[in-house]
Amino acid sequence: MEAKEKKKTGGLAGVVAGRSAICTVGTGHGLNYRGYDIYDLAKNATFEEVSYLLTKGALPTQSELEIYKKELIQARALPDALKVVLRTLPKNAHPMDIMRTGCSTLGCLEPEADNFSDQGAKITRLMGIFPSILLYWHHYHVNGKEIDTNSSQDTIGGYFLEKLHNKQPSELWIKAMHVSLILYAEHEFNASTFVARIGASTLSDIYSAITAAIGVLRGPLHGGANEAAMELISEYKSVHEATRGIYEKLENKAKIMGFGHRVYVSNDPRNIVIKEWSRKLADDVGNSTIFPISEIIEKIMWDEKKLFPNLDFYSASTYHFMGIPTAYFTPIFVMSRTAGWAAHVVEQRGDNKLIRPNSEYIGPENRAYVDIKNR
Amino acid sequence: MEAKEKKKTGGLAGVVAGRSAICTVGTGHGLNYRGYDIYDLAKNATFEEVSYLLTKGALPTQSELEIYKKELIQARALPDALKVVLRTLPKNAHPMDIMRTGCSTLGCLEPEADNFSDQGAKITRLMGIFPSILLYWHHYHVNGKEIDTNSSQDTIGGYFLEKLHNKQPSELWIKAMHVSLILYAEHEFNASTFVARIGASTLSDIYSAITAAIGVLRGPLHGGANEAAMELISEYKSVHEATRGIYEKLENKAKIMGFGHRVYVSNDPRNIVIKEWSRKLADDVGNSTIFPISEIIEKIMWDEKKLFPNLDFYSASTYHFMGIPTAYFTPIFVMSRTAGWAAHVVEQRGDNKLIRPNSEYIGPENRAYVDIKNR
Ligand SMILES: CC(C)(COP(=O)(O)OP(=O)(O)OC[C@H]1O[C@@H](n2cnc3c(N)ncnc32)[C@H](O)[C@@H]1OP(=O)(O)O)[C@@H](O)C(=O)NCCC(=O)NCCS
Ligand SMILES: CC(C)(COP(=O)(O)OP(=O)(O)OC[C@H]1O[C@@H](n2cnc3c(N)ncnc32)[C@H](O)[C@@H]1OP(=O)(O)O)[C@@H](O)C(=O)NCCC(=O)NCCS
Repeated sequence: MEAKEKKKTGGLAGVVAGRSAICTVGTGHGLNYRGYDIYDLAKNATFEEVSYLLTKGALPTQSELEIYKKELIQARALPDALKVVLRTLPKNAHPMDIMRTGCSTLGCLEPEADNFSDQGAKITRLMGIFPSILLYWHHYHVNGKEIDTNSSQDTIGGYFLEKLHNKQPSELWIKAMHVSLILYAEHEFNASTFVARIGASTLSDIYSAITAAIGVLRGPLHGGANEAAMELISEYKSVHEATRGIYEKLENKAKIMGFGHRVYVSNDPRNIVIKEWSRKLADDVGNSTIFPISEIIEKIMWDEKKLFPNLDFYSASTYHFMGIPTAYFTPIFVMSRTAGWAAHVVEQRGDNKLIRPNSEYIGPENRAYVDIKNR
Repeated sequence: MEAKEKKKTGGLAGVVAGRSAICTVGTGHGLNYRGYDIYDLAKNATFEEVSYLLTKGALPTQSELEIYKKELIQARALPDALKVVLRTLPKNAHPMDIMRTGCSTLGCLEPEADNFSDQGAKITRLMGIFPSILLYWHHYHVNGKEIDTNSSQDTIGGYFLEKLHNKQPSELWIKAMHVSLILYAEHEFNASTFVARIGASTLSDIYSAITAAIGVLRGPLHGGANEAAMELISEYKSVHEATRGIYEKLENKAKIMGFGHRVYVSNDPRNIVIKEWSRKLADDVGNSTIFPISEIIEKIMWDEKKLFPNLDFYSASTYHFMGIPTAYFTPIFVMSRTAGWAAHVVEQRGDNKLIRPNSEYIGPENRAYVDIKNR
């Protein structure tokens, strides 16, 4: 069954805001990075190969990849001043506020050159340091411990899991992280990426562009949806409860987070991949409720509203099965999407034009100024 | 003489990206805030009346203004954790990076309620605290002193000048600050404001939206232009030198900062107001070179390129005459434009639609995936 295509208006829906060679949404299986099918990448590549592809333009050779991974490992180290800031930010802060402030602080400590000649190094630095920022802050406030950033893991996903749980992650979980990070890495002119490009278009620096993007991703209609989806799923203890609960929410015209999309019409191609990983990890950890609950929500949403799960919906349970706290789901999105944001910043800089639209004025005209004494 | 109107394309030039009742660019004298002519406001109102108008929708009565000014004064206080962060950020950091990080940090310490019920209080907080953030950081690193935030001044401009110079500012300078802050306060869908709206459209919080906007304003094609303009003017010691220098730059096809505009075609209405203030302050401080140098640059740019000064050009010398370091010009822009950004965030939230455009794909298609061993 196909969802009816209804022309969307407002919010720049369907408006072409620029040209890009990075990503297509809607051709092939539905999503391609620099011309490569997302299914091929998710199945065969590591996240580091994909972030290399996005930020540098081509898939790396074995030796290019080795150098790149070494750079990413070196980039994990936290400067002392950033540690002071992370210790100072409170325990109950929103983790996305920590990511945003961590990125902005690094921009004060290690600024980009005005002519952008070191943009490549800054991008690698950010990709490498984001897991450290989150988990240094986490362990300091939750366990009173300052973590170091040495690790036996040579990938971003493996490093994140090892530092979070303070133990070696399984190969299965590392693979799940690769897939999830690959699927989240890039998605054309989504809200946060478009903001990163606008930042680049004023010739601002890369930290400003990525800090801005983090702030925009934080919203529940964008990256924040994966956390909201987990909170929804966690409300229910059984398929029966979930069925009743979702019907109730739909009657109350509530938005169901993790469903719907601005561009996709009848399914999100990324969902097919991540859903299988959610199923696999449910088996792995022996959880027999969350996956069926998710599936019944999916079925009801389609039957009742012709709405399909987007990437965020099954990403939520995938992360949950790996013991990742819900509040860290969107920060993981940051660790991945930084590759896409950075690729767009570099592309925008390569052929720049200030991004500055107009608005239609709908307010009062020609109001006579009245002095404060007579108001 | 009129500049030729040439249709601009790309960068969303001329594209209507939404509706707004806050500002018109191009009617009346050329700029109106909520229907009031900017000339009336700059001549008769204080900045606090204008920021009230923008963020709350109407000009305040005398008693409303008194309450609002008290709130702004209370909002100057710096939380201890923010002081730690400002002491930790280095002396040689870019002041706009300090503003961005200060705003982001405050979002960790005093987050907005998820339902935005306290957005008004958060906006006032940000308007009040921005001068404190900049000048606490400034005096700590430049003079080894921690300033307190008590002041005899009851306006944002007066407070800024008093804390910067550690002495009572003259009435003339306070008035110049009012005018300049009023002129900078709002400008429709400029790049940073549009970014603040995109942030609001994902339902992210107000700190994220304003942090993002600060990062975007930092760019030299946007807010950063006032600093670049001062650097340009400072290159020359006489009208003669400036004449030769600008012709040289034009021959080399250099961009002259503080000139040109995306929307205005033959002049920037704000320039007429700020230019008179630059002239007035030149007289006040007895500087007889900078104003004539600025005027000859203006004349050559018009004669040779039909380009006119925008608000940033004479703002630069106006600030310079008041002893404000060039690196703080764009942070002052933040202190003012926060009113406009906040007004747009509130308006976007009132009738929200995710802002998410598309791109035209111009990259390779259908590339076959090659395993890393065979690349
Ligand atoms: C992603 C999203 C913002 C796209 O929004 P959009 O393109 O602006 O489309 P709209 O929000 O206008 O949705 C169109 C219609 O579908 C409904 N709809 C869309 N997503 C819905 C959801 N998740 N739950 C319930 N109804 C939904 C809308 O209410 C609207 O109904 P209407 O036409 O009767 O008013 C939207 O689908 C959404 O809010 N989803 C939930 C958040 C989410 O998962 N975000 C992550 C995206 S990857
Ligand atoms: C403000 C600005 C970004 C608007 O840009 P825009 O609408 O995208 O227009 P463009 O940059 O394409 O400018 C159109 C033409 O005028 C020229 N031009 C514009 N501003 C110029 C300037 N300040 N100095 C020299 N040439 C300039 C451009 O080079 C371009 O020439 P071309 O058609 O031969 O290529 C642009 O005028 C500029 O860069 N100004 C300097 C920075 C500044 O003062 N910014 C503050 C704005 S309030």
